[in-house]
Amino acid sequence: MSLEQDVVALCRAARAAAPAIARATTAEKNAALLAGAAALRARTGELVAANAGDVEAARAAGTAAAFLDRLTLTPARVDAMAVGLEQIAALPDPVGEEIARWRRPNGLDIRQVRVPLGVIGIIYESRPNVTADAAGLCLKSGNAVVLRGGSEAFRTNCLIADVLRDAAATIPRDAIALVRSTDRAAVQILLKQDDLIDVIIPRGGEELIRAITEGSRIPVIQHLNGVCQLYVDAKADLALAEKLVMNAKTQRPGVCNAIENLLVHRDAAAAFLPAIARQLVAAGVELRGCPETVRLVPGTRSATEADWSTEYLDLVLAVRVVGSIAEAMEFIRRYGSGLAEAIVTTDPAAADRFTAEVDSAAVFVNASTRFTDGFEFGFGAEIGISTNRLHARGPMGLRELTTYKYVVHGSGQIRT
Amino acid sequence: MSLEQDVVALCRAARAAAPAIARATTAEKNAALLAGAAALRARTGELVAANAGDVEAARAAGTAAAFLDRLTLTPARVDAMAVGLEQIAALPDPVGEEIARWRRPNGLDIRQVRVPLGVIGIIYESRPNVTADAAGLCLKSGNAVVLRGGSEAFRTNCLIADVLRDAAATIPRDAIALVRSTDRAAVQILLKQDDLIDVIIPRGGEELIRAITEGSRIPVIQHLNGVCQLYVDAKADLALAEKLVMNAKTQRPGVCNAIENLLVHRDAAAAFLPAIARQLVAAGVELRGCPETVRLVPGTRSATEADWSTEYLDLVLAVRVVGSIAEAMEFIRRYGSGLAEAIVTTDPAAADRFTAEVDSAAVFVNASTRFTDGFEFGFGAEIGISTNRLHARGPMGLRELTTYKYVVHGSGQIRT
Repeated sequence: MSLEQDVVALCRAARAAAPAIARATTAEKNAALLAGAAALRARTGELVAANAGDVEAARAAGTAAAFLDRLTLTPARVDAMAVGLEQIAALPDPVGEEIARWRRPNGLDIRQVRVPLGVIGIIYESRPNVTADAAGLCLKSGNAVVLRGGSEAFRTNCLIADVLRDAAATIPRDAIALVRSTDRAAVQILLKQDDLIDVIIPRGGEELIRAITEGSRIPVIQHLNGVCQLYVDAKADLALAEKLVMNAKTQRPGVCNAIENLLVHRDAAAAFLPAIARQLVAAGVELRGCPETVRLVPGTRSATEADWSTEYLDLVLAVRVVGSIAEAMEFIRRYGSGLAEAIVTTDPAAADRFTAEVDSAAVFVNASTRFTDGFEFGFGAEIGISTNRLHARGPMGLRELTTYKYVVHGSGQIRT
Repeated sequence: MSLEQDVVALCRAARAAAPAIARATTAEKNAALLAGAAALRARTGELVAANAGDVEAARAAGTAAAFLDRLTLTPARVDAMAVGLEQIAALPDPVGEEIARWRRPNGLDIRQVRVPLGVIGIIYESRPNVTADAAGLCLKSGNAVVLRGGSEAFRTNCLIADVLRDAAATIPRDAIALVRSTDRAAVQILLKQDDLIDVIIPRGGEELIRAITEGSRIPVIQHLNGVCQLYVDAKADLALAEKLVMNAKTQRPGVCNAIENLLVHRDAAAAFLPAIARQLVAAGVELRGCPETVRLVPGTRSATEADWSTEYLDLVLAVRVVGSIAEAMEFIRRYGSGLAEAIVTTDPAAADRFTAEVDSAAVFVNASTRFTDGFEFGFGAEIGISTNRLHARGPMGLRELTTYKYVVHGSGQIRT
């Protein structure tokens, strides 16, 4: 069979399995998740051995140490995958949930009920744990999944998928499908199966996501990077502002919900900037400032126009003094990516205006942007953080992997 | 300016107007809708005269009478457009609605709040009333709109857009944008503006929608045609079944939610089929049957394999006898388009199984599929009936033209 025939056959099998996994009871899905967890633990030795082959090949190819670390599976990491599946089993089942219900004057009883999306394609990079995580989330939400992992983790991913498929006695094996080819052409073939796959969720760097979106005939839920802002208002508790800035910038700078720009109202700048700058610099943060910032914090490097829209994903922070909340919001509209913003203020009117007018997936008042996360939101899981506006926006849990249908009960109503 | 520059400038202006229309109060939006309605009425003479130019040109080009009728604007039809805008003004504003709210153990207060999608592109065919309807729905839901109507209605559409833009004193004019070119290339340019337009909703025939989806870099909400089924169960009130079949097939056969296939359980076939066939034939319906149907209703033409998946949009009905509810559902999965299905039964277990397992946008028990409609669902308006699974499924009202954001209030929470 050609690569195309292989990929299409895999997708067809997943599509054929979709009705059965959609109808599976919560108990059947949870049994499959727990069996998968147990099987991963039982086959830890095999998994670590298969992974060693991937790591060895990557090392021989001169791969960077950070990448090798992400690629590596240890017994503890296998256990973490198993724990992840057990946690998904413990979550409420979104399928069948009644979103709304109402009765029409003619007596029709209309219920809007959550149902699975169908077949979800997940295209991801090096971390092999995504194979188990994504399969688990799709399974629990009643979807069939077609996985396509990074070629560096090929042996590992194949074995994880085998383990989960073999363990899944209560659901159809083919509801968990993995593209078993390292050929990049396989992705392009996958992206053309719009009659077999309902949505593509890529997990990886911006370049991967843009390339997939460009080439896809299937709708793509993107999670592009985040240029997030924190704005310190004229009336703000500056001690609280310091705590939030430090957290939003330094607690984990390499993630999308860390801030890249700090905006400070002119009325607070003289009191706030020198102090926070000392703390940031002490924590290893490089500052890039507007002219006013540079004057208030001598020695700060001048920010270029490009700095304001750069996602550093690193210990770098651009700082700008603004004359008003309107100017802060205009900055956010112009340079931000619409993921997460925060205002620090003691003024309820300022908080109300900021939350009403700032159009980002998450808008925080007196809290760190780092809470933009499915677990922190209480979803119990996260398949990604959508930067789309359609279907799902912001952190995506199990519910965001569903759609709905209308179930209408009547007693012979006809249209006239 | 080139056509491309024109279209891009128009989209940029709509994008620039989007934040203001998104923030507009309900009163401001309603004032714009009512002013638009009044202006349409006041300028009826001008509108009818402009339309006469379109109709004359279309007639000279040899256009079919049915098309000319759809294209024609009379004073009564201008009034109907105005009434439509007044009805939209009377609907509840979806923007700002709280979808959900919860508190996290760390004290974070999370609200999920409805916000406009942003900029909506509407591409439509001959009926000029869509210009006012779509503009009104987008405006009320806080969205800017870029309209592109059929070239045959060009003069009419331009004037309707002018009237609405001129009347819109309380919202930015550019929130209502119309592509003023009959060049087909304008559509292709529009479909590339994925940084300026958030979603495309095409309104028209299947061919138009497929071509747009194929060529678009912007997400498209499709409303493709419907191959809908009605299934008469073994245990059914046959008088009620007759009433529903007649309504679902003959009340308005040319629409997507009329049925194309009638499925009858074998246990009910002998009692039901001859009687319903007489009624259908008397109503001018041509039947195409499976061998069993042909035996029970002599003289019925045999259905071909292609018949089962054909959307006739006409007084034609394919009829098939099935041995079980499972066989009926398998037929629906195989030949249906996933829009609307109905079961007629007195057996609650059969109704439960059908509504649980049939995965169509709307599933009816003892009611006509013709209720698959935004007005009939009580939405008060309808921009279309989505056949997508993502974002919006089935009838789309104002809520389906929105997305959401999370507004999170804290008291200094940081992530650790």
